This record gives sequence, C-alpha cells and structure tokens, in this order.
Amino acid sequence: MPAAGQVAQPRGWAPAHVGQIQLRGIAQVALSASPWTGLFFTVALFAGSWRIGVYGLLGAAASTVAAAVLGADRDGLAKGLEGYCGCLTSIAIVVRLGASWRTAVLAVIAAVVCSVLGAAAGRLLGRIGLPALTAPFCLVAGALAIALPTAPAAAAPPIPTAGATTLSAAELGHAFCNNIGQVFFLDTWYAGLILLLGVLVASRIAAVAAACGSVVAILTACAMGLPADRITEGLYGYNAVLVAIALAATFLTLTPWTAGYATLAAVASVPFTAAWQAFDQPSGGSPFTWPFVVTTWLFLAAAPALDRPGISFEKAK
Amino acid sequence: MPAAGQVAQPRGWAPAHVGQIQLRGIAQVALSASPWTGLFFTVALFAGSWRIGVYGLLGAAASTVAAAVLGADRDGLAKGLEGYCGCLTSIAIVVRLGASWRTAVLAVIAAVVCSVLGAAAGRLLGRIGLPALTAPFCLVAGALAIALPTAPAAAAPPIPTAGATTLSAAELGHAFCNNIGQVFFLDTWYAGLILLLGVLVASRIAAVAAACGSVVAILTACAMGLPADRITEGLYGYNAVLVAIALAATFLTLTPWTAGYATLAAVASVPFTAAWQAFDQPSGGSPFTWPFVVTTWLFLAAAPALDRPGISFEKAK
Amino acid sequence: MPAAGQVAQPRGWAPAHVGQIQLRGIAQVALSASPWTGLFFTVALFAGSWRIGVYGLLGAAASTVAAAVLGADRDGLAKGLEGYCGCLTSIAIVVRLGASWRTAVLAVIAAVVCSVLGAAAGRLLGRIGLPALTAPFCLVAGALAIALPTAPAAAAPPIPTAGATTLSAAELGHAFCNNIGQVFFLDTWYAGLILLLGVLVASRIAAVAAACGSVVAILTACAMGLPADRITEGLYGYNAVLVAIALAATFLTLTPWTAGYATLAAVASVPFTAAWQAFDQPSGGSPFTWPFVVTTWLFLAAAPALDRPGISFEKAK
Repeated sequence: MPAAGQVAQPRGWAPAHVGQIQLRGIAQVALSASPWTGLFFTVALFAGSWRIGVYGLLGAAASTVAAAVLGADRDGLAKGLEGYCGCLTSIAIVVRLGASWRTAVLAVIAAVVCSVLGAAAGRLLGRIGLPALTAPFCLVAGALAIALPTAPAAAAPPIPTAGATTLSAAELGHAFCNNIGQVFFLDTWYAGLILLLGVLVASRIAAVAAACGSVVAILTACAMGLPADRITEGLYGYNAVLVAIALAATFLTLTPWTAGYATLAAVASVPFTAAWQAFDQPSGGSPFTWPFVVTTWLFLAAAPALDRPGISFEKAK
Repeated sequence: MPAAGQVAQPRGWAPAHVGQIQLRGIAQVALSASPWTGLFFTVALFAGSWRIGVYGLLGAAASTVAAAVLGADRDGLAKGLEGYCGCLTSIAIVVRLGASWRTAVLAVIAAVVCSVLGAAAGRLLGRIGLPALTAPFCLVAGALAIALPTAPAAAAPPIPTAGATTLSAAELGHAFCNNIGQVFFLDTWYAGLILLLGVLVASRIAAVAAACGSVVAILTACAMGLPADRITEGLYGYNAVLVAIALAATFLTLTPWTAGYATLAAVASVPFTAAWQAFDQPSGGSPFTWPFVVTTWLFLAAAPALDRPGISFEKAK
Repeated sequence: MPAAGQVAQPRGWAPAHVGQIQLRGIAQVALSASPWTGLFFTVALFAGSWRIGVYGLLGAAASTVAAAVLGADRDGLAKGLEGYCGCLTSIAIVVRLGASWRTAVLAVIAAVVCSVLGAAAGRLLGRIGLPALTAPFCLVAGALAIALPTAPAAAAPPIPTAGATTLSAAELGHAFCNNIGQVFFLDTWYAGLILLLGVLVASRIAAVAAACGSVVAILTACAMGLPADRITEGLYGYNAVLVAIALAATFLTLTPWTAGYATLAAVASVPFTAAWQAFDQPSGGSPFTWPFVVTTWLFLAAAPALDRPGISFEKAK
C-alpha cells in the first residue's frame, strides 16, 4: 500500500493507472492521494446510494479527462488533484436534481468547468502560497444551486436557543458520523464510518484529526444552542472535519501548538457554517464547503506571521 | 479608419481629439478602442431612448475628465479606458431613477468614483495580469441599485421548468438581438443590431464572437429551462456576449482550442447570471456585468496553466 | 504626552506597559497609537454603558494576549494593533446578546480568532501595500451576527424618499455626534463628543477629518433622501468618519488634493453603507465597518496610479 503522499509518474493511460487516478481524485476530497482511501470513499458513496456513487465516479472522471485534454499539469493530474472538485460537484447536482440524462450532461459540463476553475485557483492562490482546496466545487455547485432552485426558498433559518443544546447518546453518535459523511452529502451513519476508515488507511493522524474535528464541532454547536436535529444531521460539522484534517494533518506539522491552532479553527468554522447557511437561505443556496475553504485559507495565511513550533513553518509537502 | 488597437498619442485637448476619446470610451464597453465603434454605439443608445444616449455621453465624459484631473495614466485615457465604466454607470442610474437634475448630479459623482475605482482595479489586478473589465461599474452601480431601491423587492425569482424551454422564431430573433442590446440596458431589437454593426466595423472576429456568444447563451438558457420571457429580453445572454468577445477576440489568440474554451465560458456564464440575479433578488440588486467579469477573470487566470494552442499564451496586446 | 505615531519598545510586561498597550489597542479603532486617545475612548465606552466599557476592555485584552501567546509581531503588539479588532468584536457581541458568562466566553474566543485573522490579513494585504484596518472584526462579528440571530429578520429596509431629507437643528447635532459614536456602537451624543476629544488629543488633523467626515456623511445622506431617524442615529455616517481619518490624516499626506480625494471617498461610503445594510437585511446581518474598509482599500490602492500632490505618494508611516 503506497504512502498517502507517494505519487506514481504518469505511465500512459493503462487501465490500472487510470483507475488509480480516478480513486485518487475521490480521495483528494479529504486531502489524501491514496487510491486505497479513494476505494473506501467510493464504497461509502455507494453505501449512501447508487446514484451518489455513479455520479461521484462520473464527475471525477469528467473533470480529470477535461484537465488532461486542456493540457493541465500532469503531476497534479496523477495525484488526483483534478478529480475531487468534479466528484463533489457531480454529487451535489444529483442530490439536488435527481438522476436523469439531463442531470448527467449538466454534471459533466459542470465538472469540466471545475477543471478550468481549478487551474485558475491554482495560479491565483499559488502566488500567495495557498492551496485551492474545494473552492472550484463551491463556486460551481453554489452557482448551480441558486440558478436551478428545486423549490421556493425555505422559511427563515431557525433561531438558536438561549441555552446550550443537549443531545442524546444516539444523536451524538449520529452527529459524529454524519459530520464526516456530509463532506460527501451522505447522511447515513455507516457511510460516515466507512469514510473515516478510508482516511485511516492512509494516515492515522488524519483520521484522529477528522474524529477530533467532528467532536469539537458537536461541542461548539451545542454550546451555541444550534438546533439539535441539524447538529445530528451533521450540517454544522463537516467543515470542521475538513479544517482539522487540513491544518493538523496536511499543511502544518503536528505539534501541541498546531493541535490547539487547528482546534481553534475547527471551533471558528462552526458559527461560520451556521452564518453562511442562514445568509444563503433567502436565495436557496448552500455554503457547501466554503466555510472550510475560507477558514483554512485564513489560518494558513496567518501561520508564517506567528512564531510557534509547527505553526510558523509550513510542512514541506 | 484606424485599426481597433491603434492609439493616437494625446494631442492636447483639441475638440476632435476630445470627441475621439469620448467615442472610444463608449466603444470600450465592448473592449474596442475604435471611435467608429463608439459612434455606432452612441447611435444605438439614442435609438434606445434619448435619455440613455445623453446619460451615456455624460457618464463617459465625467469619468474621463475626472481621470484626467486626478492625473491618471494618459495612455489609457486616450484609448477610452477611463470612459466605459462611467458610461455604463450613468445609464444604469437613469434607467432606474429616470432623468432629472438630481439624477444627473448622482450620475456625475458616480462616474467620478468609477474613475478612482478604475485606477484601483488597474493596480490590484495588474499584478496578477488580469484586466479591470467592467468591475468598477458593477461595484458602483451595484451599490447604488441596492442603496436607492425604487420599489420593494420583487417576489421570489422564477423556478426553472423541468424540461427545456422552447422559443418561437420571433422570440429567438429578439433574444439574439437583446442579448447584445442588454450590454447597454437596451431592449429593442434594432438597438442590438446597431451595436453588433458597431462591433463589426472594428473587428470581424469580435462581431462573430458576439453573435456566437448570443446563440450559445440562448441554447444554454433553453436547455436549463429558464423562463422564455426573460430569455427573450436578453437577461441571461449579455454576459455570454461579452465573455465571447473578451476570450475569443480580445485577450486570447483565436484558434479552434480558444473557440472551444470561449464557448465553455459563455455556457458557464448563463447559470452564473441566473444565480446572481436570484441571489440579488431579495435586496433589489442586479448582477449587472459581474458574471462576465468573474467568468472572464477565471478563464484568463487559468489560461497560462493550460497547454493548448492559443490558450496558454495570452495575446500580446 | 507622546505623539500619536511614537511607539515604545516592549519593556517586558510591567503593569504600566501592559496598561499602555491596552489603551493603545482601543485607540487604534480610530487609527491612533496614543494611550491618551485610548483613555478618552475608554471613558466614552463607559459613558455609553458599563457593559460596553467592560467588554471593550475584555476584548482588547483577549486578542492582545492571544497575539502575544501565538508569537505575533511584537512591534505591532506594542502599537496596539492587536487590540482594536478584539475590542470592537467584543462590544458588537455584548450589544447584540447582552452581558452574561456565556457572552463573555464567546467574546474571548471571538477576540482570539480576531488575532489570527489579523495576522492573516496583515500577510495577505501587506503584499499589495494595504492595511488590514477593521477587516478581521467585520468578518468575525459579521459571521456571529448572522449565526446567532436574536430575532427574526426585520421587514424590508426603508425606501428612500424622492426628495432630499431635512433634519432639525437638534437632529443635526445628534447625527453629527452619533456618526462618531457609532464607530463604537454608541448612540448617545456625549459619547460621540468624548470620542472626538480623544481623537483631538492625539492629532488635530484627525479630529478635523473626523468632524468633516461626519458633516459630509449627513449632507450626502440627506441629499439621497435616506430616512431621517436613521441619519440621526448615525447609522449612515460612521464609515465616512473612519474613511476621512484614514485618508486625510493617516495614510496620505494632507494637501488640498488629498482633502478632496478623502471627501469623495466619504461621500461614496454613504450609499455603500446604505446598500450593505439593505443587502444584509434578509439574513439579519450588519455591515459593521466593511464599507469603511473596502472604500479605504480601493482609494488607497488607486492612489499610486494617480499623479497629484499628496495622493500619488503614500505617507511614510
């Protein structure tokens, strides 16, 4: 089993190699380049529903092929960096519009646009040393969610209660798993667990970070008095899971300082997620993973200006 | 007749020279520096209504004079680059508030602010190799549209139909022309045709790009099931027209690859426009040409990272 | 009394030194590094209400301590640059949620996040030569305001009248003072006057700029026909006050050209503020000082591209 960071050189388009790139594209949603992680993630998608699985594979393939056709960087291609935004965008589309030939065409075009935006984000953000993360997905899926509403905008978002929210043990368990599952729009607890296993096969640190991010998000959301049913669905925590993986296990070297720094970021991502959901409510939009993207960008941008072990020096990746 | 790109050196403020700068300022709305294009555009504005014509000239003059007084780059001034945002802003104001002395004062101040924002956009975007496009206009007109609402926010935006939209031949013709006319807030078919002629006198490629952009936008909007009356008014297509001119005829060298790239961008601009309109609905705002600006920025930023003829190397302009 | 720009080197954590940093942190809200200004500002906060005073001190202390613990730049720390965003954020939180232990914990965490975002803003904006201003505060307070709504979103914002608004002499006086007071969420006229005195003890130019900014904002808001009660509360003018201080007294050298430039910026900030308030209405958010931040950024970014005395060369600060 190759290490998460190890990357094979492009070896033409042998089927095995193509399959590996495809799986890596799905694994990169959780910032991993391991095909084994991608395999677990694919299983989790199909555990959610066959539609999500098929569209996830379709989107990852479409944006990877588009990037290859447009002549994007072959090294990023081999790492799966051209697949994850297309994968997520395609899933976001099928979840909202349902499976059909029209949806499939839309998903493919959207995934192709993702690959162009990925190149743009890489160039614009590369100058300031920040990764693109899932920004292309958020932009494309966000525009489509508002452009193609499926129902009139819902009523006003719920007002937090004055006190803290309390959850039963079952709700806590569901919230823990769904915080991970919602990264892929999955809301069944076992899908979240399979995703966590997938992270684990590539990196123990990333799996611990994901689990801690989920716990921190639940505690923060409860302390804020956010509604219990939405906490249980994982709607406030998926950004914290990704923030924790990005800061504690991917872009910074893990030290006690970094762990605290990532915890602070995970805490901050929860009100940010709640705010973005409420802000998007009138137009029927969704924050998708924007709160993860923006929180991670800001905490990574701040890191070199701070002088503590692990924070000030970014990981040579 | 000078070529579109040819630029006279400032020759003091002789009336003929001043008139030429004024016309170029209006031509630059469609990324052209030809005074002949500007003349056709002015005729189209007056064909729309005398108010639009007068305010268009007023706005272009006000922002050009302000830029000269503030000491902005004289080369850009001579090319008309200080006029187009003021022109569009002034038209946006009169269309919304109606003609009056108060409107005229507001239009002049707004045009002056446009010239400052044009300088800011030039400096901030110049670093990353992107043009300002109509961003100053969008910012000023967007703020004023929300700050000075003329009526309570309309009801929720229409929900797209499940199937594709079909248009009659007459509707198709109107949509084709209005997609071009709406660049200047014009919604009469002959105004759109005069604008297209104006583009044609400076550059055949730009005229073909504008026409193709309009057709692509209609096809995309119909495929998305957007409402027929709004497609016919040109409300989903004016950004695609500008995107096509910018990518296929202005900033990239035309090749089959660029043509496909520009088509993809024009397609992407349609849901982006629909989304921005829906997003702005609750506050009474309007996307103006933001979708054109952002789509063009992203596709231009991505271009050097892609390795295909015409896309990877930006036109030496 | 030290001049506004004079900065003591960190001398360990002697109580007098700590108190000076704390006062400077509050003074930096109005871009001053004078502890005397901070003392007047603190008095004004307590004149508003003891809660605002206590939370203002708490927030400034929390973000300064967090910045010190995280190893931020000690020179900025000594100037109070790590305090002002925490101070404002903490006040924004107590004004909205009322004082309680839970509010205090939230205010401290928010202030800590402010210090991280301050480091991020410093690095990202430093590259393009722009100051962070109150952007970290606006981001944190803005997210919390939407995430923790205290009431359902209000009705649609008021529509401006067709003519100009007229104010009585008493309303004019209140509007003048409240435009300054609202920088700190204060709406009692004497609190605004104490703040103005605080600016005056450090810099006469800054005090004149603040006063002129307030007058310009009232004239602009009345000319726009904005509602009299909101003008009197200072809700359209606090950004103009800050814009005037920033452009005429802090970042540019004062010349007749700069004075005109700052006036134009102050005028522009008023519709921008009105627009941002209307835009945020559906989600229950608030613009806070975003209009000041964005207007100042754009006018500062444009300055080097313009060739007039005082505007083209930024003050060596």
